[in-house]
Amino acid sequence: MSEKKITRNEFLRNIGKYSAGAAVGIAGLNALSENASANEGFTWPWPYEKLDVEQVRKLGHLGYYDGACSYGAFHAIVSALGEKVGDPYANFPTMLMKYGEGGIVGLGSLCGALNGACAAIGLIAGEDYKPLVSELAAWYSSTPLPTDISNEYAVNHEFLVSEYKSDQSLEQSVSGSTLCHVSVTQWCKASGFASGSSERSERCGRLTGDVAAYAVELLNQHAEGTFAPVFEIPSEAQYCRTCHSKGKDYELGQFTRGKMNCGICHDPHPIRESCTDCHTPH
Amino acid sequence: MSEKKITRNEFLRNIGKYSAGAAVGIAGLNALSENASANEGFTWPWPYEKLDVEQVRKLGHLGYYDGACSYGAFHAIVSALGEKVGDPYANFPTMLMKYGEGGIVGLGSLCGALNGACAAIGLIAGEDYKPLVSELAAWYSSTPLPTDISNEYAVNHEFLVSEYKSDQSLEQSVSGSTLCHVSVTQWCKASGFASGSSERSERCGRLTGDVAAYAVELLNQHAEGTFAPVFEIPSEAQYCRTCHSKGKDYELGQFTRGKMNCGICHDPHPIRESCTDCHTPH
Repeated sequence: MSEKKITRNEFLRNIGKYSAGAAVGIAGLNALSENASANEGFTWPWPYEKLDVEQVRKLGHLGYYDGACSYGAFHAIVSALGEKVGDPYANFPTMLMKYGEGGIVGLGSLCGALNGACAAIGLIAGEDYKPLVSELAAWYSSTPLPTDISNEYAVNHEFLVSEYKSDQSLEQSVSGSTLCHVSVTQWCKASGFASGSSERSERCGRLTGDVAAYAVELLNQHAEGTFAPVFEIPSEAQYCRTCHSKGKDYELGQFTRGKMNCGICHDPHPIRESCTDCHTPH
Repeated sequence: MSEKKITRNEFLRNIGKYSAGAAVGIAGLNALSENASANEGFTWPWPYEKLDVEQVRKLGHLGYYDGACSYGAFHAIVSALGEKVGDPYANFPTMLMKYGEGGIVGLGSLCGALNGACAAIGLIAGEDYKPLVSELAAWYSSTPLPTDISNEYAVNHEFLVSEYKSDQSLEQSVSGSTLCHVSVTQWCKASGFASGSSERSERCGRLTGDVAAYAVELLNQHAEGTFAPVFEIPSEAQYCRTCHSKGKDYELGQFTRGKMNCGICHDPHPIRESCTDCHTPH
């Protein structure tokens, strides 16, 4: 048999042969399930017990000031589960999610709070992560944030008043996007505060709690078997996606993917009135 | 003392008091470090030994077909470390990163391969994650992908030919962005393949390997003490950020944050020629 026709299993059996200097064997390729060690006996997804939504909201806000948005949301959920469930959450290195801050290290891509909360869903919900993450992202994009609850907590000093940066009720904004850059700009424009202001930090702290809390609402529903999606792809994106979706026909405009609101970045082009505006006649 | 002046430590000691129904205590708030359990004895960051870059490139490509881009990149690095280092990587639930696929469940935000590789850096590099993630993201945004190496592997059938979707050398494109949506579109436009094509999937599989491999290059340099940043913020973004950076002055335009290439989404406005174009005279 030629090396050019090897199968997957043959590759896995012979990885040393095909990869000079390779130090990785079959166990390394299969989630290390054959090793007796830390986390042994716990299979993905990890166990879940319903959490207190408001408690997680406060933990998320606290975590923001400990390690920024992405860590804050992830740690809120994982640490609450560690207290309630115990292993395998104990000593889980939640700091791994710090990189997500500000759309990964301040670059402004995916909102870190969303990234961290989605990672928790990814750990807990198993193959059901897709509808839960979709729902969380759609809620994030269309909900005025920070929530009234987070604002009330701050005004009533139910957060850690000695550390957080404002006890005022902060302006709310709808991001229309999952992106940190867009979300921050929309809030700054709604509030009149600069992106480097203490108020903007505090807004992101409250938002971190809000996102972790909503993720827990969804996880609780999932645990109860009552989860049902509410949000849909934004109507504007639905319209654009009649052509510009993930598909097989490049000429039709299927050269992109995504489900975010197109108008955040793109100006609309004129409405197509004839098939031949896009298609070559056959 | 009024509840309105509680300190952080008081909050942690009295969390039950301030949160009716709360099930989370101090241990839950502090990475569960007091629990004797799985992962005990391993502190963040987790241990690292230099890995074989080319081996991880192949594992990333393989992982893409097992669980998409984000899992693929993360699992490649973690499973290779599991084989080489053992605990605490053994049985680590790498599937948690599946949610990152296609910019979180296909929404098109942060590239999943980048998200997964950054999570591995976040686990391993400790507080040094920032320059490493910045470097990886900048490399991703400015490098023609898939790399020549990945293309050669495919043409030479050094990947798993029975499973992957093309053994052709695929067109390369520079994303100019960390976003899945932009990266995929740039590649589709460069190659002429649709976003739902087998070739686009295969391109993302090769890219997953490439991103995991470059993350390992950076982690190896970090382990050796030879890491030095090469990439800078894109020159166009640097120009825009002379006003539109994260800062304290809303009126100057500091109502946003981010370091991506602004021109990907925004048309430039006319160059400002006078201070009063932006500022009210004092």
